[in-house]
Amino acid sequence: MTYQAPLRDMRFILDHLVDFEAITALPGCEEVTADLAGAILDEAAKFAAGVLSPLDRLGDRQGCRLGNGEVITPDGWAAAYRQFAASGWVGLGMATEHGGQGLPKILATPVAEMWHAANLSFSLLPPLNASAVEALRLATDERVRALFVPRLVSGEWAGTMALTESQAGSDLAAIRTRAEAQVDGSYRVFGQKIFITYGDHPLTSNIVHLVLARTADAPPGIKGISLFVVPKFLVNEDGSLGARNDVHCIALEHKLGLHGSPTCVMSFGEAGGAVGHRVGEIGRGLEYMFVMMNEMRFGTALQGPALAERAYQQAVAYARERVQGRERDGSPAAIIRHADVKRMLLTMRAKLMASRMLAYSAAAWFDIAARHADAAVAEKHRRRLDLLMPVLKGWLTEVGNEVCELAVQIHGGAGFVEETGVAQHYRDARIMTIYEGTTGIQAGDLVGRKILRERGASLLALLDDWRPLAGELAAAGFAHLSSRFDAAIGDVAQTLAWLLERGNERLAEAQAASVPVLRQLGLVCGAWQMARAALVARRLGDDVYQRGIVDLAEFYCAHVLPQAAAWALAARDSAALCVDFDAEAL
Amino acid sequence: MTYQAPLRDMRFILDHLVDFEAITALPGCEEVTADLAGAILDEAAKFAAGVLSPLDRLGDRQGCRLGNGEVITPDGWAAAYRQFAASGWVGLGMATEHGGQGLPKILATPVAEMWHAANLSFSLLPPLNASAVEALRLATDERVRALFVPRLVSGEWAGTMALTESQAGSDLAAIRTRAEAQVDGSYRVFGQKIFITYGDHPLTSNIVHLVLARTADAPPGIKGISLFVVPKFLVNEDGSLGARNDVHCIALEHKLGLHGSPTCVMSFGEAGGAVGHRVGEIGRGLEYMFVMMNEMRFGTALQGPALAERAYQQAVAYARERVQGRERDGSPAAIIRHADVKRMLLTMRAKLMASRMLAYSAAAWFDIAARHADAAVAEKHRRRLDLLMPVLKGWLTEVGNEVCELAVQIHGGAGFVEETGVAQHYRDARIMTIYEGTTGIQAGDLVGRKILRERGASLLALLDDWRPLAGELAAAGFAHLSSRFDAAIGDVAQTLAWLLERGNERLAEAQAASVPVLRQLGLVCGAWQMARAALVARRLGDDVYQRGIVDLAEFYCAHVLPQAAAWALAARDSAALCVDFDAEAL
Repeated sequence: MTYQAPLRDMRFILDHLVDFEAITALPGCEEVTADLAGAILDEAAKFAAGVLSPLDRLGDRQGCRLGNGEVITPDGWAAAYRQFAASGWVGLGMATEHGGQGLPKILATPVAEMWHAANLSFSLLPPLNASAVEALRLATDERVRALFVPRLVSGEWAGTMALTESQAGSDLAAIRTRAEAQVDGSYRVFGQKIFITYGDHPLTSNIVHLVLARTADAPPGIKGISLFVVPKFLVNEDGSLGARNDVHCIALEHKLGLHGSPTCVMSFGEAGGAVGHRVGEIGRGLEYMFVMMNEMRFGTALQGPALAERAYQQAVAYARERVQGRERDGSPAAIIRHADVKRMLLTMRAKLMASRMLAYSAAAWFDIAARHADAAVAEKHRRRLDLLMPVLKGWLTEVGNEVCELAVQIHGGAGFVEETGVAQHYRDARIMTIYEGTTGIQAGDLVGRKILRERGASLLALLDDWRPLAGELAAAGFAHLSSRFDAAIGDVAQTLAWLLERGNERLAEAQAASVPVLRQLGLVCGAWQMARAALVARRLGDDVYQRGIVDLAEFYCAHVLPQAAAWALAARDSAALCVDFDAEAL
Repeated sequence: MTYQAPLRDMRFILDHLVDFEAITALPGCEEVTADLAGAILDEAAKFAAGVLSPLDRLGDRQGCRLGNGEVITPDGWAAAYRQFAASGWVGLGMATEHGGQGLPKILATPVAEMWHAANLSFSLLPPLNASAVEALRLATDERVRALFVPRLVSGEWAGTMALTESQAGSDLAAIRTRAEAQVDGSYRVFGQKIFITYGDHPLTSNIVHLVLARTADAPPGIKGISLFVVPKFLVNEDGSLGARNDVHCIALEHKLGLHGSPTCVMSFGEAGGAVGHRVGEIGRGLEYMFVMMNEMRFGTALQGPALAERAYQQAVAYARERVQGRERDGSPAAIIRHADVKRMLLTMRAKLMASRMLAYSAAAWFDIAARHADAAVAEKHRRRLDLLMPVLKGWLTEVGNEVCELAVQIHGGAGFVEETGVAQHYRDARIMTIYEGTTGIQAGDLVGRKILRERGASLLALLDDWRPLAGELAAAGFAHLSSRFDAAIGDVAQTLAWLLERGNERLAEAQAASVPVLRQLGLVCGAWQMARAALVARRLGDDVYQRGIVDLAEFYCAHVLPQAAAWALAARDSAALCVDFDAEAL
């Protein structure tokens, strides 16, 4: 079924929840008028529904394959990409100084959500260009930068991130790919990388691999790793393409989902070495990569509500149409009239709206952190973003999976049949909690780096920001929302106190509790956004939509939020049991 | 990876938790000695590991296909089935009067768990025979019974349940297939059935379809539906096979999982009518079918812990073997040493052991209900079984999915790659909460028929049985277990009081709360079993295994059980919101 961008929901959040107007008044955003924003959202919605959504199913069925050492993508993929690039979508959020359109994150985010929702496999390619540009502009030889960056911004060429090796997944310190310096200042790269998204494809005339590798005589571990740019085709001084470089896709993974997106095993230097150029200083490769990954992490987080929306649309359409049983008056009943089907749909919409609101709010924090004239304001939002980035990646992607799971359930037996299409979303979604750092990795980052390292300062600041909201809710007559949110804040404060105590004495327990803590924080962040939305919606009036938002917020806090307390208990009460459990008994 | 039956866990439950000895002392079980039971479990474990497990992966890859109007199953499937039948496994739990081995459910259950775990696709076939025998012995013409039953018990022929039609899924009242009476007492059946598991295959010489259909002039709705037996090949008086009957598989579903098991669209009567015989009285088809389905429901429930065990074995092996990062001393660390991986493994094992214990306990109740000399004892167990059957089907299958989901997560990126094999379990598992009645259907049965209709009597009796356990736990020094279980009982009592009140006045709210109530009850039943296991394990001694059970029970009640309170809150606080929510705003 064709995906239709949820423009009403998107506009509600942009116009009323994140103060879009204030953000577009920030330095550098002056040209983003409400009219322009509206036009961009409308155009993106059309492209998503008209071009990307129909290819999604086809991509799942056809998949990718290797032919004569080159990757062949599904029918229509290349034409769609050329149209996508020609429309200027690749450089939408990239800086104007590099030829991008420099749109604020708050506008680029709903657009990216549409790409993810319409065709997740397709949508994985463009963000790789943004990451590659980010890396190349960091610290690269001027000549290389001038040759590569504009073509990545325009989408004429594509990027990749070549990090993982079979023995080096979450632990990049174990990387073995090596780079040998040449007399002309270039390098020759040798090694094998796995899980390389769009490692090869015919969508662009050249592909620019950002590769982590060790230089000769580099120290072991993280400090020995540098970053290199290795093009598929060598680039002449005038920008024209030269010889085929010694980098090849030697195998494609057969995956649970995302069949339309090639996941490649890439071999560098089988025939003498792949020619590359160093990016930035020797030994700082991981540092640069983490800069790029922070950006990617947000993009991946956004896939959660995106795929949830896609699955939700399909489930709600099915529930309105599928007849089973009868109404009291004997007429056939659509299953949306069945209490538990309605409960599932409400759960899906509550979770996806809460997570979308949190994602768009984070997009606004990005813009404020990057552009606000008052350094203190910028810093406050940067810190909040740093604190919550692992929660966004971890919680939003888990929610995306949960919503896709319910979409299958609503379809009953038809959900298990591939013909319906809903099973594809369930399969596609499963990678989201894994790539760009598993939920466990995010939770470790949250508890270790973002909470314990600074003794909870940013989280305490967030709690302080939250506290007045309980009062506002009570004043507006939202008694349940107020008391539930207030209790949830208290529970987060208790978790934080527990973490700080454990961090001093029994760090292993804090680590064992990290995912439950992330889940708790995600659920409470969702309640925060939903409570704000309820206040706004009630102020705006009382039409079906606005009442729906208010009722959805009440449902979220009554039905979904109780899980936060359960995770909090699990975190505090079971961490020591987990640490002390004899692994022999597993 | 090859599945190995968890004989230690199975024996622990049989020997210490369900009083196997007492059950085998029941009338009709006298021949089941401990030695015989041990030999059967060992043989089944060998067959599961040696024959069925290796075919599981192959079945997933090859799938089934239609060739010349007949279903072709994966390589090796037919040979394995013949070996399975020749070894007497088909009739293991069937009554001796029909040629079965008449083993008690408590012994047939771990054996069935092995089949499900080793190869879920394969394991779906044999229980169809048990259902067919159950139906045929209910009320069929003596001659038909004598011809069909022994061949179904031996496994020479196979059964199917042909219920669902495209417009009649959960609502069987909407069935349109019709049966026309012939002068010789037989019928001609016309219609199309979908989702027919093993509707056609080359594993047996004949296939016996149990078909729901309407007789001529039957009233509309449920009362017009009768049950018919329709063989693939007509059967001569001497039992030899006659002409091909007018029933054919016209399409196979392309499914998310269970690729090894053919799911057929079956057409009856395209060329003049499929010859069939009525089973029992006219208009009582659904009633007979529900008898068969109760049995099937338990078998499906058991698939939850079975597939969970399969996925758990794979995850724990991977976690012990996969190296990522380093220990403090610098040596490579297997990921089982990572706190969150260990937490996931513990969660998996805790959930699967709790659900297995509940399943085996239910098997014991079956035997006691069927065989106990004291009618009051039998009746008590029959009522408990009736009450908890929807909880078993609903909760155990949800748990099975949750455990498979974590197994993928532990594998990281490798979990998303089909080569690893763990993704297959995730795909296969997804149907369990749907077929044989979705979780929503189970929950409706629980709240409507099993709780409200009898004003909570059986649940109150169960609560009474539970209460002394909190005291026993405290007396044995399990302070946490005692207080947590006690609180959980109180919470169930509160849910029951709320349900009874709503059932009087606002039935729709009770319906909207039904799945949360089922989840709550499932989680508390799990705690009940785990608490009993902790008491037993501590009494038995203090080796690694027994300590592991005690610690697992503590972990379950600290980490998993808090979800019960969250579901209870969700049930009570959000039901009215769900009912009142304007469906236009979805």
